[in-house]
Amino acid sequence: MRHLFEKRHATPGTAPGTLRAPSERRVEEVAVRVLHYGPDLCDETGLATPADLEPWLDRLAAAEPGDSVTWIDIVGLHDLDLLTRLGRAFGLHSLALEDVLNVGQRPKVEEFADHLFCALRCFHRHGGELGSEQITLFLLPGVVLTFQEIHGDAFEPVRERIRRGTGRVRRAGADYLAYALIDAIVDQFFPLLEGLGERIEVLEHELVDEPGPKTLEAIYHLRRELVGLRRAAWPEREVVSTLQRQETALVQDETRVFLRDAYDHVVQVLEILETYRELAGSMLDVYLSSISHRMNEVMKVLTIIATIFIPLTFVAGIYGMNFEHMPELGWRWGYPAVLGAMTAIGLALLWYFRRRGWL
Amino acid sequence: MRHLFEKRHATPGTAPGTLRAPSERRVEEVAVRVLHYGPDLCDETGLATPADLEPWLDRLAAAEPGDSVTWIDIVGLHDLDLLTRLGRAFGLHSLALEDVLNVGQRPKVEEFADHLFCALRCFHRHGGELGSEQITLFLLPGVVLTFQEIHGDAFEPVRERIRRGTGRVRRAGADYLAYALIDAIVDQFFPLLEGLGERIEVLEHELVDEPGPKTLEAIYHLRRELVGLRRAAWPEREVVSTLQRQETALVQDETRVFLRDAYDHVVQVLEILETYRELAGSMLDVYLSSISHRMNEVMKVLTIIATIFIPLTFVAGIYGMNFEHMPELGWRWGYPAVLGAMTAIGLALLWYFRRRGWL
Amino acid sequence: MRHLFEKRHATPGTAPGTLRAPSERRVEEVAVRVLHYGPDLCDETGLATPADLEPWLDRLAAAEPGDSVTWIDIVGLHDLDLLTRLGRAFGLHSLALEDVLNVGQRPKVEEFADHLFCALRCFHRHGGELGSEQITLFLLPGVVLTFQEIHGDAFEPVRERIRRGTGRVRRAGADYLAYALIDAIVDQFFPLLEGLGERIEVLEHELVDEPGPKTLEAIYHLRRELVGLRRAAWPEREVVSTLQRQETALVQDETRVFLRDAYDHVVQVLEILETYRELAGSMLDVYLSSISHRMNEVMKVLTIIATIFIPLTFVAGIYGMNFEHMPELGWRWGYPAVLGAMTAIGLALLWYFRRRGWL
Amino acid sequence: MRHLFEKRHATPGTAPGTLRAPSERRVEEVAVRVLHYGPDLCDETGLATPADLEPWLDRLAAAEPGDSVTWIDIVGLHDLDLLTRLGRAFGLHSLALEDVLNVGQRPKVEEFADHLFCALRCFHRHGGELGSEQITLFLLPGVVLTFQEIHGDAFEPVRERIRRGTGRVRRAGADYLAYALIDAIVDQFFPLLEGLGERIEVLEHELVDEPGPKTLEAIYHLRRELVGLRRAAWPEREVVSTLQRQETALVQDETRVFLRDAYDHVVQVLEILETYRELAGSMLDVYLSSISHRMNEVMKVLTIIATIFIPLTFVAGIYGMNFEHMPELGWRWGYPAVLGAMTAIGLALLWYFRRRGWL
Amino acid sequence: MRHLFEKRHATPGTAPGTLRAPSERRVEEVAVRVLHYGPDLCDETGLATPADLEPWLDRLAAAEPGDSVTWIDIVGLHDLDLLTRLGRAFGLHSLALEDVLNVGQRPKVEEFADHLFCALRCFHRHGGELGSEQITLFLLPGVVLTFQEIHGDAFEPVRERIRRGTGRVRRAGADYLAYALIDAIVDQFFPLLEGLGERIEVLEHELVDEPGPKTLEAIYHLRRELVGLRRAAWPEREVVSTLQRQETALVQDETRVFLRDAYDHVVQVLEILETYRELAGSMLDVYLSSISHRMNEVMKVLTIIATIFIPLTFVAGIYGMNFEHMPELGWRWGYPAVLGAMTAIGLALLWYFRRRGWL
Repeated sequence: MRHLFEKRHATPGTAPGTLRAPSERRVEEVAVRVLHYGPDLCDETGLATPADLEPWLDRLAAAEPGDSVTWIDIVGLHDLDLLTRLGRAFGLHSLALEDVLNVGQRPKVEEFADHLFCALRCFHRHGGELGSEQITLFLLPGVVLTFQEIHGDAFEPVRERIRRGTGRVRRAGADYLAYALIDAIVDQFFPLLEGLGERIEVLEHELVDEPGPKTLEAIYHLRRELVGLRRAAWPEREVVSTLQRQETALVQDETRVFLRDAYDHVVQVLEILETYRELAGSMLDVYLSSISHRMNEVMKVLTIIATIFIPLTFVAGIYGMNFEHMPELGWRWGYPAVLGAMTAIGLALLWYFRRRGWL
Repeated sequence: MRHLFEKRHATPGTAPGTLRAPSERRVEEVAVRVLHYGPDLCDETGLATPADLEPWLDRLAAAEPGDSVTWIDIVGLHDLDLLTRLGRAFGLHSLALEDVLNVGQRPKVEEFADHLFCALRCFHRHGGELGSEQITLFLLPGVVLTFQEIHGDAFEPVRERIRRGTGRVRRAGADYLAYALIDAIVDQFFPLLEGLGERIEVLEHELVDEPGPKTLEAIYHLRRELVGLRRAAWPEREVVSTLQRQETALVQDETRVFLRDAYDHVVQVLEILETYRELAGSMLDVYLSSISHRMNEVMKVLTIIATIFIPLTFVAGIYGMNFEHMPELGWRWGYPAVLGAMTAIGLALLWYFRRRGWL
Repeated sequence: MRHLFEKRHATPGTAPGTLRAPSERRVEEVAVRVLHYGPDLCDETGLATPADLEPWLDRLAAAEPGDSVTWIDIVGLHDLDLLTRLGRAFGLHSLALEDVLNVGQRPKVEEFADHLFCALRCFHRHGGELGSEQITLFLLPGVVLTFQEIHGDAFEPVRERIRRGTGRVRRAGADYLAYALIDAIVDQFFPLLEGLGERIEVLEHELVDEPGPKTLEAIYHLRRELVGLRRAAWPEREVVSTLQRQETALVQDETRVFLRDAYDHVVQVLEILETYRELAGSMLDVYLSSISHRMNEVMKVLTIIATIFIPLTFVAGIYGMNFEHMPELGWRWGYPAVLGAMTAIGLALLWYFRRRGWL
Repeated sequence: MRHLFEKRHATPGTAPGTLRAPSERRVEEVAVRVLHYGPDLCDETGLATPADLEPWLDRLAAAEPGDSVTWIDIVGLHDLDLLTRLGRAFGLHSLALEDVLNVGQRPKVEEFADHLFCALRCFHRHGGELGSEQITLFLLPGVVLTFQEIHGDAFEPVRERIRRGTGRVRRAGADYLAYALIDAIVDQFFPLLEGLGERIEVLEHELVDEPGPKTLEAIYHLRRELVGLRRAAWPEREVVSTLQRQETALVQDETRVFLRDAYDHVVQVLEILETYRELAGSMLDVYLSSISHRMNEVMKVLTIIATIFIPLTFVAGIYGMNFEHMPELGWRWGYPAVLGAMTAIGLALLWYFRRRGWL
Repeated sequence: MRHLFEKRHATPGTAPGTLRAPSERRVEEVAVRVLHYGPDLCDETGLATPADLEPWLDRLAAAEPGDSVTWIDIVGLHDLDLLTRLGRAFGLHSLALEDVLNVGQRPKVEEFADHLFCALRCFHRHGGELGSEQITLFLLPGVVLTFQEIHGDAFEPVRERIRRGTGRVRRAGADYLAYALIDAIVDQFFPLLEGLGERIEVLEHELVDEPGPKTLEAIYHLRRELVGLRRAAWPEREVVSTLQRQETALVQDETRVFLRDAYDHVVQVLEILETYRELAGSMLDVYLSSISHRMNEVMKVLTIIATIFIPLTFVAGIYGMNFEHMPELGWRWGYPAVLGAMTAIGLALLWYFRRRGWL
């Protein structure tokens, strides 16, 4: 969960558009992968060094716009030089470039003169801990640029579809690729939600069977994760909704139908999150009520035992006194009489408890 | 409740429009039933095998649009072949077909070039457990296609009305049939709500009479079901509202009046759900307060008994000590004096408790 | 409160527009009362049997529209025949007629070709129990039709104003009559709200003086009634607001000013309800806190007494042991020394409690 | 607080526009004060009896509209005759006149053909109790009419500004006077809010130092007052907002800038109220938690003492039994051995409590 | 936190536009600093006395509008004379000038004929206490006026950027300067939020490890600060949003892109605040549950010990009675038999507790 509330700004008041690498370097080496494809073409290159990108950029500038799409995927954000070169080559806005590096960015979409910029958040779970990375995406005519913080597998299924040529992706344009990547990020939520759903069910059983401080911690932890996921999912809903309705030549009408589908998915994610949140809230109430009820049971046992035996012990104490002149002590039937009186007191108290509904 | 949070996606990132059967096969055999009717005509056929649908499709393609309506009702979703054939025959959009199989779909309506697609959720209670199925519906000119997950009786009353020719249904078009089916699904909520209302009343009595951990579990269970029903009812409200107001040639103006009526019903369902939710929330508060109050009563009894007898027992303990030089022990009226002192202490404490309002 | 959540539908899936009498017959005989009035005319007739209505209907059909207004008021809903005849005579929409009988209807207004239909809910309190009835109203040119479930006095003041000719009602048209009736129904809320306000004040005193399970039940009961009233008042606000702004020839501009006044009343009802709801919510919190605080007081007394005397009793117990070799027992000042030690222990504990702020 | 939920209607169903004096007469005598002013003119007259108003009305009717403004301020509402005369003289709408007397009116603004009507609520604190009065205002060309329930000082600063000629008021028109009066009413909230803020701070200290049932009552009382103030402030926000934006010739554009300023003040009042409400809600939570924590402390002391001494007392009890054959009693070192065993048990229990973190 | 709820008005009803110095003088001397810059020019002057401003104003009036921008920054608000002179020199609206001095102002933006006025709130933490000051800003063609309550460092980074000529600021106009200042104020939130985030994490650990009254106080304090920050951040969001979209010649289109960026920052601030608020709310619930659970543990230990030993002590008490005729006392195996019975009772009770799950 550490990464849900990331440090966002170095110092307040710095000039907007200043590029500064994120404080934490999450991959060793910046990796660049170029995928150039069209209906009958699929050329995938992993560049040895970021410097190898130069010839690609030249080729792209020389090429005339056609059916083919170029997807440049960069993993790792600490090579400011590469970013500056890409910014210059594609004419990217300096504020958008700054946002690529601001890894605590709120998901958003922004339209600039000739390109669209999207910032999204992608979650994954490593060893129980929920982590996240910021993924940013530029959509230009015929070109998609993506920036990831760490190596992950969110984009692998899309890459696979392009390689195999399944679905529409090879025949469609760069906007469809952007849609497919955003949809892949949104889809990452579903396995997480399933995992959370299972944890909720486990917690529900724990609540009934043996609630304890661990249950409490688990409920709080769950709520915290739901808060974090929700904080990312709400603006992603806006992102997809804006993309679908925005008047921009970069997104074609055929792609909008698919974006509507992606929108349905985000809304579904949000509804499940809200449902989980409500259940988590109920669980805390139930926990508290359950603890109170248990305490009540404990108290009743204590009260019954103590209330019966404390007066009896007092009676025994009286006849344990050492006064010389205690006539009862000499009576023949004193002992049985006292035992009888004690039994009577005990039974009367039991009858009283039963009448109050404690037994 | 298992089916409220269904697994939705096989793997994140698969191509949109890919058909994949739901993981759980909820009926043994896919059943297809065709109902062809008009003002003076009602022809109902249960097809032996899905393959028998072919001649019907040919006949439909050949027929010229007239007054008659064809309703093809399919129960069971695992025959992908049938679905593909239907999709091709009626020109259904691939995203809509995919949604037919995504049984955890959020209720929605989507308009495509020449057909409308609705996904709805239908609830039923089997042996105490609340279950649900997804029902999808395509509205085309003169044709309605419906897909159900399991055999149920939601559509039976409509079928009966068509058979008997009661109401407007035989004289109206396919849009009225679609309305009647949606209305039948919405109406399924009412008996469920009545059942929940009765459970709420039972719980209210339990709360007053003898609240216990079972009451708590029942309240939580109730809330969980309300959350699930509400999650389905809200988007169904949107579905009916969209259908009523959407500018589409597929829905005639006369039918819109009826959709307004169906809309009133969904809104009523939602309001009852909200009311129940608020009551369920209050009940948890009352439960907690009631437990606390009972604990208070228990504590008061314990405190009164213990506070009276503990000091008295101490006094008895003093005179039970075996010191050789305890002059009181030899006094003639020592014993009665101690008994009197004890009575006085007891009465003083009782008076104190009465003044504090504990008796 | 039984009538707040009424059974609404006979069976899901029945054809819309089917007339079916409500399950419960709340008056013995259906009563019809016709009031025909104009600026200089007031003719009131209670019909012996519903069949006597026929000549009235004929006369109405023959009359030419003028200044006079006819108000037909029907109490009791189980005469389907009468309803059908009225529907035919005035051309009422079948969905509206069905809603007259659906007594669990949500308050609403619907405009049809040449008439307006309103459903409203009217509350009254009989012997402590909050009851309600549905009142439906048709507004046609020169005619107002009202249907009530039970004999009540909501409309009596309006009838009285017509008889006496006070206010504008005799000079105004049917729309003003409809307004006056709706306003009378809305005004029924005010005495109820006053009663609730008084109960809130009583509860506030109980909370401070002697909160108990009865207080808790009363708070829950209060909340339940507020939920029920609110569920009716929100849609009635919509009804009046729609009537005021709707573009319909049936409502004249002069009447709209009065509807704005009625609208203010409904909004006021809603605000008072919200205020009461918030206070009721606070009261539950205060109840819980108050119980907790009292328990704390009880515990403190128990703890002080027990903590002082339990160790002292232990000391007495030691010297009550019967060992042969207990040198202290033979000491001359053993007994006074032990008594002194006990006093010292007791005082030390008292000092400790005072330091902790428990005394 | 008695006046927050005032009785509003005499009887449901009375004709709208009927004048009826409020049930409670809050001043002895109706006082009328006329202030006639212009840039170079300020004429203030307190009328001996309401009947003296007649010549003023005649003069006003005769005067031609110019720069001068007449403000008629009436304190006390039980002179229906005066009200009727004013209504006739200025052509006031009967519904507005009725609202002048309905002292439980929701704050609102209404535009009639040639005059504006505002109802506002003004709070003041007398001897700890929060009271309120309704202030109504009519704005006509060149004339402002105000009605107050009781003598108060809300308008005095405005009157003073007119007398002294400070600010714009003498040079501006009747609309500016109306603004100044409304602004004066809104400003009345600020000292109240300051007082509430101070009470919140006192309560915060009490919560930490010595929370008790008085704190609880004070928090509830605070919430109740916040609810009442908020119920008045929300519609006053609407009033000012409507006045500022409404298309009416009665309010000039220069005055709208000032109304925008008044609007900012109301919004600020509302935000402070919301903030206070949230703090009050938190305080109740903190109170409950604090009580629970204190009870926990009390319980721990009781448990430690009881758990240590109850077993020891039992041991002492064993050797206090009077069996003839108890060999330990005759042992030489029996007594010291038992004392040692008791010390060991006590130390073991102390060690256990320390390990659990109770000491 | 003292400064979150500042006294706002001297006396209700004073004339709008009256200048009155704030009640608290937060700096000793009013400091004026003038910064005149353009693409190739940067002239910074700290004026010795406010009177030295006069020549600057003359020069400004004489200069013809060009590329250069003049920023006059005033720290300290008690020099009413200076304010009046500035107001006259730049034609500032009297209501805006009054708002400069109303230091409890709600953040807002107002457009006047030829200048824009913004009020903002800037937070800083001194020695653990959260303080705030109001910063107001006038934007005129080529001129920016800012008023601060205290010396702070919010604007220092912007001043530094102007001096060094980094970023766009020297080449852009007065509107960009205004943007840069507002952005600097918004950015002040981020270090505060980080600090709060760290406190939340510390509290989360405390909750698990050793919750106590200090934790409770810290949570309440946190909530209070969140409430205060949120109350300022919401209207600041509106301010930036209005500036970005308002149709005014004072803000150029290039600057709007940057304002959109600032808007994103404010929204992010708000979302983090909401997230923190939700976590703080959860923490209180967890605290209460945790306390309850601990009390339950304490009670269980007490109950187990007391329930086992109280009956045993009673048995010992019986045989400590001094009756002459107690046959058991004379039996040879009486003592061992009683010891055996006691052990049996103890074991039975232990078995019972284990069955109830208390051990």
